[in-house]
Amino acid sequence: MKDPVELLSEYIAFASVSTDPTAREGMRGAIEFAADQLKELGFSVQEVPTPLHPILLAERRTSPEDPHILIYGHYDVQPSEPDGLWTTPPYQAEVRNNRIYGRGSADNKGPQIVHMAALAKALQENPNLALNITWFIEGEEEIGSPSFRGFLENYKDRLAEADFVLLSDTGSPSPDQLVVTTALRGLVSMEVKLTGPKMDLHSGIHGGAVRNPIQALSTLLATLHNEDGSVNIPGFYDGVSLPESWERDELAHHPSSPEEYAKFLDVDEFFTAPGYSALEAVRFGPTLEINGIGGGFQGEGQKTVIPSQAFAKLTCRLVAGQDSERVEKLLVNALRDRCPSGVRISIDTHGGGNPYWIVPPNRTNTPADQSPAIQKGFSVLEDAITESFGKRPLYLREGGSVPIIADLKDIVGLDTIMVGLFTPECNLHAPDESFHLDILHNGIDAFAKIFANLARK
Amino acid sequence: MKDPVELLSEYIAFASVSTDPTAREGMRGAIEFAADQLKELGFSVQEVPTPLHPILLAERRTSPEDPHILIYGHYDVQPSEPDGLWTTPPYQAEVRNNRIYGRGSADNKGPQIVHMAALAKALQENPNLALNITWFIEGEEEIGSPSFRGFLENYKDRLAEADFVLLSDTGSPSPDQLVVTTALRGLVSMEVKLTGPKMDLHSGIHGGAVRNPIQALSTLLATLHNEDGSVNIPGFYDGVSLPESWERDELAHHPSSPEEYAKFLDVDEFFTAPGYSALEAVRFGPTLEINGIGGGFQGEGQKTVIPSQAFAKLTCRLVAGQDSERVEKLLVNALRDRCPSGVRISIDTHGGGNPYWIVPPNRTNTPADQSPAIQKGFSVLEDAITESFGKRPLYLREGGSVPIIADLKDIVGLDTIMVGLFTPECNLHAPDESFHLDILHNGIDAFAKIFANLARK
Repeated sequence: MKDPVELLSEYIAFASVSTDPTAREGMRGAIEFAADQLKELGFSVQEVPTPLHPILLAERRTSPEDPHILIYGHYDVQPSEPDGLWTTPPYQAEVRNNRIYGRGSADNKGPQIVHMAALAKALQENPNLALNITWFIEGEEEIGSPSFRGFLENYKDRLAEADFVLLSDTGSPSPDQLVVTTALRGLVSMEVKLTGPKMDLHSGIHGGAVRNPIQALSTLLATLHNEDGSVNIPGFYDGVSLPESWERDELAHHPSSPEEYAKFLDVDEFFTAPGYSALEAVRFGPTLEINGIGGGFQGEGQKTVIPSQAFAKLTCRLVAGQDSERVEKLLVNALRDRCPSGVRISIDTHGGGNPYWIVPPNRTNTPADQSPAIQKGFSVLEDAITESFGKRPLYLREGGSVPIIADLKDIVGLDTIMVGLFTPECNLHAPDESFHLDILHNGIDAFAKIFANLARK
Repeated sequence: MKDPVELLSEYIAFASVSTDPTAREGMRGAIEFAADQLKELGFSVQEVPTPLHPILLAERRTSPEDPHILIYGHYDVQPSEPDGLWTTPPYQAEVRNNRIYGRGSADNKGPQIVHMAALAKALQENPNLALNITWFIEGEEEIGSPSFRGFLENYKDRLAEADFVLLSDTGSPSPDQLVVTTALRGLVSMEVKLTGPKMDLHSGIHGGAVRNPIQALSTLLATLHNEDGSVNIPGFYDGVSLPESWERDELAHHPSSPEEYAKFLDVDEFFTAPGYSALEAVRFGPTLEINGIGGGFQGEGQKTVIPSQAFAKLTCRLVAGQDSERVEKLLVNALRDRCPSGVRISIDTHGGGNPYWIVPPNRTNTPADQSPAIQKGFSVLEDAITESFGKRPLYLREGGSVPIIADLKDIVGLDTIMVGLFTPECNLHAPDESFHLDILHNGIDAFAKIFANLARK
């Protein structure tokens, strides 16, 4: 296999922007590039068609007695706009400051190259590696994986043969401190719209006669939180438990301080629900956020209208113990019940996803029936990362949502072990996205050991 | 003087769009057309330059002993866009269904032609009409009259010689039921902006740590009204008195019913402050409206951000007894005092204007010191309108704001008598603007009598 930086540069050159219908060539080039690498590693590969972008499904089969892992990745990337803010062209990789720059370098092409080059290394040392691997690389991650559940339903019997999933599409705080992500938050998403008069009204001629939809919406939204910052929807917190003390201990090793965090955000004070510090709240606590609001005149100056409509976009982030369908219902009912008179309410739910969590072995809350394969997975990972990066990984929950992970659990029954290979400096989804070369090289070293040690001896 | 329909058609042909820098030719044509008509009526005319569009100032002087009225009009019009929605071209007048169609036909070129043709008629009957008239026609009404206060300051001594101002730039409910407007609401206008973190944040990675500016803004805005619909700012209602019983009686003669009004607005119920019906609230009550709100993601679908900022645009409509500077201060202080923690507030005030009111003679609340000239003005108007339109005018307050009227009072010390010559069907500021020919002809008849009877016999 070629030099990994060269390989990654080639992979970056394909502008595989899944949301852009004109990016067919880049999408095709990327999936064929990934297929070629896996073929070179001895995989049999197939393209699974979906309503939109095909999924690459590759298999390396040894004995059915051997361990079996599933590896996930995605070959699509975010759009590169605004291109003018890139130091060098987004699809022309360049190495500087010990980083490789380019769209997709960190999300998710770099981590895939780490896995591929690591497997090449492991196979070089032991061509008969006794490890079954099913590798799938999707092309719709950046647009919410709309075809992924259908794929899991169709292939669940084949996928369920694996012991667990290995994924590197999460973050770590710094190039020498990796994090194994132990939870992802779930999501509930909806838009609420209030309609008053049938058209925008002149606020002089008609002001005083009708309920203003923006006033009604503000009043409605103001009911959703208590003054202490907690969510004011009865039942919202049912099932939520505070983090275990081992989780707070892990967080204490996180290299970021509350002071640095406040400075980074440029806020004078944090605002968290009771029971959580700021660094805890973003990982361990559920939230209800208003992501957008609009109505009436938004231009320069003033226009004295009473608008016909106003809307808000809401999402909840859910943690272990919460169910997305149940919370969606609670929120919809609260909005309907509390909607002021004089306006009509309509609510569009946008789907969501359940939270996911996995507890490492030997913790206070490790499930008694955790499989030996997963326990071995964690142990092999910890040893390899500690050796290759010089520090043991931290085990932390993460605030974001990766709905496919909960889907893999729900539909296929598989757990996922997540190793974060990008850092906050990688500029995901933004100009000058980059991937740290220490992580690239140490990651290859670590994953080569991981593959070697997961295999049957 | 020519036929008034022909005259109005010529006036409409000038595309005098004051907001459009490319409409110089139309602006020039319109002011010169108006100057020519007034010259033909024996006026000496001058163009008063301003930083933007000149004001036409014309004077007809008889004996200083004669009564003296000021007549206001504006030669500028709103833009005609969207032109595709006009049945016939906006600057090419056409008569159909007993209406003359064209941009400016009702606002304000038609009413000016009524005044001019009426004066021509009065002068035909009595060339030595003993009536001083100062006529001024501005060119910035549709853009908020930015040069008007400066003009008043410079010319206040000359203008103050008049007894009162006559203006026809307000509305009436139907072509046979004219309204003399007895009050205009004042205005307070501002934009409030809340800033949280310095950039939009990913609601997964950072959700739970900071105050969301939209949540803070909703909470803040929700404090501004009580549940009963009244404004929740201590002192806001100070000085406001409920309408006199004669005013409620007048309103009872208004041809619109609450049921028709609710149907027109397409609302299931009205929402008014206590003490006012819907038709009363829009004329007699003060309001605080949210005219616009914005923040975060407003596109299709979802984007899980916590926005850095959120803003709202607010206006108050003020009634007799309220002072715009005082109310502005109350609102600014309330917003600052009630702003939730964790965000920074900034408030831009956009200026405003005081309410204006004038009480006809012989009412329960007529000022004891009302001038005989004004009392005669009201009486002459009522007789002429009753004869020419077949019904006595109604005396009603109006909900809109025309800040120049309060400015005339504040700076020059003059009161204004307002006779509404357009109706809701005239489509002001919209496609297919039109002016009813019955109002044109009966208006000329009425104003000819008004001029004749205001003159010294």
